[in-house]
Amino acid sequence: MMSSRILPLQPLTAAAFAPYGDVIDCASAKEALSINEGHTTRFHDLAALDLGREGGHPLISIFRSTPKARPLRLELMERHPLGSQAFYPLSGNPYLVVVAPKGLFDQKAMVAFLARPDQGVNYHAGTWHHYSLALGGVSDFLVIDRGGPKDAAGANLDEVRLDPAMTIDLEEAEL
Amino acid sequence: MMSSRILPLQPLTAAAFAPYGDVIDCASAKEALSINEGHTTRFHDLAALDLGREGGHPLISIFRSTPKARPLRLELMERHPLGSQAFYPLSGNPYLVVVAPKGLFDQKAMVAFLARPDQGVNYHAGTWHHYSLALGGVSDFLVIDRGGPKDAAGANLDEVRLDPAMTIDLEEAEL
Repeated sequence: MMSSRILPLQPLTAAAFAPYGDVIDCASAKEALSINEGHTTRFHDLAALDLGREGGHPLISIFRSTPKARPLRLELMERHPLGSQAFYPLSGNPYLVVVAPKGLFDQKAMVAFLARPDQGVNYHAGTWHHYSLALGGVSDFLVIDRGGPKDAAGANLDEVRLDPAMTIDLEEAEL
Repeated sequence: MMSSRILPLQPLTAAAFAPYGDVIDCASAKEALSINEGHTTRFHDLAALDLGREGGHPLISIFRSTPKARPLRLELMERHPLGSQAFYPLSGNPYLVVVAPKGLFDQKAMVAFLARPDQGVNYHAGTWHHYSLALGGVSDFLVIDRGGPKDAAGANLDEVRLDPAMTIDLEEAEL
């Protein structure tokens, strides 16, 4: 049986997540504008979107994700070399964000964040990440990512198997 | 005193909204893909985004909108000639979507929709619309629209004053 290692969990903050991408929330806004005759505050431009490379264009999709079985065992990481990928939670549940730095995949450098229900994330192009890890029930996410002519050939998806598998102790984190 | 006219309210459906833009919800998806080792359904490409004209690029922002005072009186419509603008509600509240066809503004052609908390909208470039009309309390919306070099000069915003003002009878609609 393959052994596993425990990945500690930390709160998601813009500063800690900066090497991997953007945290999408009002608190991280550099600019807040009053518009609409004073009825709206626009928390402006919350993510560095990178969706136009090599004929790419932005897409809006909804991901409906079922939590993985417990104990939570992570076995696969992925990256999108040609574009950013943003997730914003729609179901009022927290979720997990598991990343590793761009470049050659380094399993020892993996980091796990606990995201609040009012925090989105935008993975920068090339950031290794686990696929969406819902908590607390089936959860929807609004996703803004790249569509492109070569997607069918897998040009914008690389995957790597973990060895050993990693686990996150959700009971320890009271999740 | 300026007189006003009552604008009837209808449910938001993809078919009724098609002349103005897209309804962003899972039910409107043309494609639903199983991804992430079966843990996620991707409701794919839910809006016709148009964000690249004349040096434009996509932005993600959060709009925090306060409901207008009642009786709800509409006095202003706007359009973005250079790009689409998508709204997805984040606060679990319904909201209003008020539009008029592209081209020369025709007040008699205005239409008001009631959007559910699980429905986003994407206004196509040039569609006349009222600014975001929250219901039920201060509401956040994730907004995907166009940033561009000429925005400061108002190149992507036209406004028109209504004459007479229009009202929506929210009590009649039990809102």
